[in-house]
Amino acid sequence: MCSCGGPNLFGKTSAMTEPAVPPAGRVAGPVLVVGAGLIGTSIGMRLRELGVPVWLDDSDSRAVDVAVLRGAGERSGSGQGDPALVVVAIPPGSVAAVASDMLARYPEAVVCDVASTKSGIVAGVAECAGPAAARFVGTHPMAGREVSGPNGARSDLFEHRRWVITPTAANSESAIAAAVALAEACDAVVVRLEPEVHDRAAALASHLPQIVASALAAQLEEAPAEDVVVSGQGLRDMVRIADSDPVLWADILDSNRSQVAPVLNRLIDDLGSVAGALVGSSQSDADVVKRLLERGSAGRARLPDKHGGAAPKYGSVTVVVSDRPGELGRLFAAAGRAQVNLEDVRIEHSVGRLKAFIELSLLPERVDALRGALVDEGWEILG
Amino acid sequence: MCSCGGPNLFGKTSAMTEPAVPPAGRVAGPVLVVGAGLIGTSIGMRLRELGVPVWLDDSDSRAVDVAVLRGAGERSGSGQGDPALVVVAIPPGSVAAVASDMLARYPEAVVCDVASTKSGIVAGVAECAGPAAARFVGTHPMAGREVSGPNGARSDLFEHRRWVITPTAANSESAIAAAVALAEACDAVVVRLEPEVHDRAAALASHLPQIVASALAAQLEEAPAEDVVVSGQGLRDMVRIADSDPVLWADILDSNRSQVAPVLNRLIDDLGSVAGALVGSSQSDADVVKRLLERGSAGRARLPDKHGGAAPKYGSVTVVVSDRPGELGRLFAAAGRAQVNLEDVRIEHSVGRLKAFIELSLLPERVDALRGALVDEGWEILG
Repeated sequence: MCSCGGPNLFGKTSAMTEPAVPPAGRVAGPVLVVGAGLIGTSIGMRLRELGVPVWLDDSDSRAVDVAVLRGAGERSGSGQGDPALVVVAIPPGSVAAVASDMLARYPEAVVCDVASTKSGIVAGVAECAGPAAARFVGTHPMAGREVSGPNGARSDLFEHRRWVITPTAANSESAIAAAVALAEACDAVVVRLEPEVHDRAAALASHLPQIVASALAAQLEEAPAEDVVVSGQGLRDMVRIADSDPVLWADILDSNRSQVAPVLNRLIDDLGSVAGALVGSSQSDADVVKRLLERGSAGRARLPDKHGGAAPKYGSVTVVVSDRPGELGRLFAAAGRAQVNLEDVRIEHSVGRLKAFIELSLLPERVDALRGALVDEGWEILG
Repeated sequence: MCSCGGPNLFGKTSAMTEPAVPPAGRVAGPVLVVGAGLIGTSIGMRLRELGVPVWLDDSDSRAVDVAVLRGAGERSGSGQGDPALVVVAIPPGSVAAVASDMLARYPEAVVCDVASTKSGIVAGVAECAGPAAARFVGTHPMAGREVSGPNGARSDLFEHRRWVITPTAANSESAIAAAVALAEACDAVVVRLEPEVHDRAAALASHLPQIVASALAAQLEEAPAEDVVVSGQGLRDMVRIADSDPVLWADILDSNRSQVAPVLNRLIDDLGSVAGALVGSSQSDADVVKRLLERGSAGRARLPDKHGGAAPKYGSVTVVVSDRPGELGRLFAAAGRAQVNLEDVRIEHSVGRLKAFIELSLLPERVDALRGALVDEGWEILG
């Protein structure tokens, strides 16, 4: 599958026509987007807003049709000439081969990918494309959602999001600049990481949680009915992402296995310590359990909030509403009148109940204002 | 600490004055509630609504004051005579001793507890109280919330909730009937389980998720900042309950360790298989990972929905809103006008973004109606 570029591609002629370093945020086009899914189509839509010519390619012709209709560019075809930038927006397992092929086919283009793991891809392109890999820059826009395909695309999908780029010592400055320009054109915040650091971070923040959610949910598969039926919201929240596509996720985990395995083993060690302490009965056993719970609480506090800082302790107001149409609307209208910005909402539908508890999270200094306003309007506040 | 009742308590006189079997849902009072926390106060409030005399006791005198103000009964004191029913509503570690003391102090009363584990308590009372344990019935109303104390109490806290009772062969029929009557008076659905079955179910549905959430969050404690900062909503949902009280949870886990250890070890085995497969490279290794993901998906589908059945596949509509006061109110008012009952709401505040994605879950057959109504009113719908 790999078409490796020969050394002649890096002779003087090629170097002279290498794309010029574009000004910050300015993408030199035309841009060929390979893969008209959520990410590729969103990039195309944004670049078209900026007037950059975009060509779209996908093995699924209908996906290209949708992406064109969404305003992400025009269908790629013969006679269009060569792109200045190729964005490979396909699943991780195929990126190295396709990116290497693009490097060979367009000997003056910079090629980027947008896949969710980086080390294997960067190494694969280096191996397959040889010196042409100087024009390949691995990137990962952190803008995944639980929707996929061009229908879910948005030109502002990357706005204020982190966009990791993982350049290597082999990369040309112009290639790195082109990757940065792409991310900046999409209004993303560029984060430069080593490929291995990126993958280690993704292993902890994304891949480990997926394995844990699936393993926890797997314990329900064969459990007696009475064990399942007593479950509450805590368990439900923890297994939500267990409903992911097994084939896609097996591929993602495989592509990052060298980083996932160590953090998974650390988790297993911690769980094993607790399991051991539960069969013991000494004070030190009890301390092992308590210490893990304390570490968990401390670890959770390090998670960034929506503004990127460490999670603040939000205040909350819990309201009891009837579980029927219109109640939430009335409640949120009331919160709006109180000029309160809600940070989060959780609905606790108790199994079998006709009422719901709505927990509204907000900045602590606004709690009293919201509570007062809701009480004034006759809402039932808990606690 | 234990005051064990002697055999004379079960002579003819005592048997003759044993509480009569009450009619379904009718609680014979007076009822002494020991522990004026969330559960105890809620029970008192409900019983008072039904006209049953309630006396309240708590080592925290202020908690009793609050419970009295909430209408949960009157402060217990000398000269009130003996209760017909004692509800011990204190943390699990102290239940056996206090319940045994109550059995001895009130030789004609039925004594129930409401703690979240059962085997150890039932065995402890049997050991400590001897034959008087015939009048003790372990129960567990499944109505825990993330609030505690008498301020969070509600007379309808148990409405349509499951209320597990765990009678043993040693229990008298009248004691079992009194426990059932208490649960039915609170409009709960009585579920009769062996103490061991209850604890096994709680281990899977409640205690294991807590350990896993804490262990996962614990991996964040020492992680480099860049690993933490790329985390998204999936991880955040999974570690939400890691913010629980370590002391309380160490106590809960300790009280159910014989049931928690086996299910925790099964989870560890599954995680270990994945860890092993990730360092392998054969097709069978890949299958191990994929199989776990499939089992997770199947297990998650067994979770009951809010009406007690298996989780239906809800449809969803995702709306893009500005992250500012009033927007949610406008949105939910619009959903109310569309006569749609929302089953769940998830707000995805992307880190650093000025917009939020609001995912509204609802019955699949109502999706088109909601989408149409929102589009008509000018809302931006995703996908």
